Amino acid sequence: MSVFILLNCKTFDEGTARNAIKLAEACRDVSESAGVNIAIAPQIPDIYRVASAVDVPVYSQHIDGAGPGSHTGKIYVKAILEAGAVGSLINHSERRMTLADIEAAAVVLKQNKMTSVICTNNIATTAAAAAIGPEYVAIEPPELIGSGIPVSKANPEIITGSVDAVKKINPNVKVLCGAGISKGEDLKAAIELGAVGVLLASGIVKAKDPKAALYDLVSLI
Amino acid sequence: MSVFILLNCKTFDEGTARNAIKLAEACRDVSESAGVNIAIAPQIPDIYRVASAVDVPVYSQHIDGAGPGSHTGKIYVKAILEAGAVGSLINHSERRMTLADIEAAAVVLKQNKMTSVICTNNIATTAAAAAIGPEYVAIEPPELIGSGIPVSKANPEIITGSVDAVKKINPNVKVLCGAGISKGEDLKAAIELGAVGVLLASGIVKAKDPKAALYDLVSLI
Amino acid sequence: MSVFILLNCKTFDEGTARNAIKLAEACRDVSESAGVNIAIAPQIPDIYRVASAVDVPVYSQHIDGAGPGSHTGKIYVKAILEAGAVGSLINHSERRMTLADIEAAAVVLKQNKMTSVICTNNIATTAAAAAIGPEYVAIEPPELIGSGIPVSKANPEIITGSVDAVKKINPNVKVLCGAGISKGEDLKAAIELGAVGVLLASGIVKAKDPKAALYDLVSLI
Amino acid sequence: MSVFILLNCKTFDEGTARNAIKLAEACRDVSESAGVNIAIAPQIPDIYRVASAVDVPVYSQHIDGAGPGSHTGKIYVKAILEAGAVGSLINHSERRMTLADIEAAAVVLKQNKMTSVICTNNIATTAAAAAIGPEYVAIEPPELIGSGIPVSKANPEIITGSVDAVKKINPNVKVLCGAGISKGEDLKAAIELGAVGVLLASGIVKAKDPKAALYDLVSLI
Repeated sequence: MSVFILLNCKTFDEGTARNAIKLAEACRDVSESAGVNIAIAPQIPDIYRVASAVDVPVYSQHIDGAGPGSHTGKIYVKAILEAGAVGSLINHSERRMTLADIEAAAVVLKQNKMTSVICTNNIATTAAAAAIGPEYVAIEPPELIGSGIPVSKANPEIITGSVDAVKKINPNVKVLCGAGISKGEDLKAAIELGAVGVLLASGIVKAKDPKAALYDLVSLI
Repeated sequence: MSVFILLNCKTFDEGTARNAIKLAEACRDVSESAGVNIAIAPQIPDIYRVASAVDVPVYSQHIDGAGPGSHTGKIYVKAILEAGAVGSLINHSERRMTLADIEAAAVVLKQNKMTSVICTNNIATTAAAAAIGPEYVAIEPPELIGSGIPVSKANPEIITGSVDAVKKINPNVKVLCGAGISKGEDLKAAIELGAVGVLLASGIVKAKDPKAALYDLVSLI
Repeated sequence: MSVFILLNCKTFDEGTARNAIKLAEACRDVSESAGVNIAIAPQIPDIYRVASAVDVPVYSQHIDGAGPGSHTGKIYVKAILEAGAVGSLINHSERRMTLADIEAAAVVLKQNKMTSVICTNNIATTAAAAAIGPEYVAIEPPELIGSGIPVSKANPEIITGSVDAVKKINPNVKVLCGAGISKGEDLKAAIELGAVGVLLASGIVKAKDPKAALYDLVSLI
Repeated sequence: MSVFILLNCKTFDEGTARNAIKLAEACRDVSESAGVNIAIAPQIPDIYRVASAVDVPVYSQHIDGAGPGSHTGKIYVKAILEAGAVGSLINHSERRMTLADIEAAAVVLKQNKMTSVICTNNIATTAAAAAIGPEYVAIEPPELIGSGIPVSKANPEIITGSVDAVKKINPNVKVLCGAGISKGEDLKAAIELGAVGVLLASGIVKAKDPKAALYDLVSLI
């Protein structure tokens, strides 16, 4: 099973517009040279230009389950698909959704053969998300997001606990972990704890040299 | 396993203030005479006066997971507990919550030995809710709520599907069903399909004679 | 124009259930002895027991504009009116509402001859709230709420600016200020800056002796 | 004062991706030939490709006031600006925002010299929105949106009332109206009632020939 790294640009200026393209190029280069699957989640207005410019899997940071119609401002699956996205984050801690909306979003992604990454905050919500059947759940303890303290060190039990809980509910669902991840040892620890990869942001996006930071990230696997 | 009926007063005038007390008395009388467990969920400002006046299990219509502190307007578990509630609806279709908030609400109820009833809209969200481990999930297809068309007739597969999904995830969780339920045959059908009871509202609250309607409801079990 | 003090119990344990009644008694006693208008906003489940037990104006911490009907978990104006409330906070910083919902809430309160206190976060939103025509707007810079640093010292311009903006939009609307208020000098400063009173919480609710703290609060006016 | 027409693509398939570009071309052509200011609000993932392909003012359907940073999934002003947007809808009835967020969104647009269009649902909320000082308020009675019944016929008083209220609060703010608008007579009536233009969607987006529908729309002014 190959390692999966998903780089979330959030709304960092270092990950907006042209900067998102540069980050996407770094993802592509490191992905090719290290043989690791690296995807990028730019801001929604940047999906098209990133996907058009760089040969890298592009994810949306959010998606709504709403179909075509009177849903002004909602992120419609067809719009991100046509813009070049291959999947989407769902329920990121900075964009929480209702349970009904999470499920609806996962359904419209599946209908369009796109990849769902449902973000969760603890073992119980990870188990709940797994019951919905996405490709990935990404467990991120909110208190560690952006902290620089890797979840794999601060709270390894939340990763192993999530992996165990998911296995019981739906063994097809893969577990990512996030929060504070930025270094090779963090990724290595995450994999050893049973995750298949990581969701990360500031550690790479705001690094002086994001490409070098990505090389370091994948250096121990 | 005893049948459980939970009467939701919503914000109907027929279920507000003194009217909530009258409904609670009807619940108590029918419960005692028919040997069925009937509880009432009045509006939150009415919990104290209903629980003080009538010997019947009282549920809150909503609860927030927030603890003590700076949470103005939130429904704090200690406040409803002290007011006399024994449990709460969580995530009713008219008061949807984020997945993280649903789980937090179930946790604070459990910590206070109160009963959680997580409402859901389809089989997948029912499975997700079951993974959180409440006492009850209450499946209510939104399109049937308030319709007068009983879910047990319109969509029996959603009940059997929910019962099966819950059994696989967490066999301790019991399934209620709701939406359009008001008559004895509806409750009977729900039980036969594997539910342990029903969540219902307008069919009783707005009945000319709610007590008679409750007697009819329990007449076939 | 008489000074108005509104004590928000938030979800502090020191302001829940029996403790809310004790705080209400302190409000009543200080109000009577000092000739100042002091009201209390207990948690919603506590409105009835506080209003029944103590002769003091009781406000809700939140209200929804929803009418009677299928609005499970919503705070219906008739329910808080019947429970004994004379008004409500609207749009507290810990319970933000959409503009449409703020206006709808103010309308249902007015229809029931109850008092609206719309909370706002800066001068522009205070002006917007004034355009809706409530009895009071309560300006509370979010960064100072619960800080112990009184808005009247940290940011007096936000009070004078709010008073000026409101005067231009609708001179019938009165301005309260909040955030960090707890002492007599804070209230005095607020009045001198043009506010007619204050909205406050932790400084009194969590004081060792809330009654003494209230006496101190009104000691300089 | 020139007439302003803002075409909202919502999430109609007829206004997604390539179809948004075609609609934008129709807007540009009719705008040039009729000498009317016509802008388009495609879905957020389509802003870049529409603005890159067609010389027409492009608006976002939504914007968040959030700055750069940890705001995954939020619509950051710099991202839509760099994608080519010149302004944004704020608080559309299908994407309601809190008062604080509406104001924050208007502020970030102003800081970037972009145009704010705050949507409102009645005269009181229009007055409140005007107090925030956007370029435009767009009054749309929710019950008429998508109805095909033009607000200018069904409820002309809401337009004149909004125009009057706005004039008193902030005469620099211009009034658009929406809901059910699609024909030349609707636009003409709106202008006569004091609006400077219209916000419209399905009547054009879902027309058999959107360009012809746009020509009809501007035919009487």
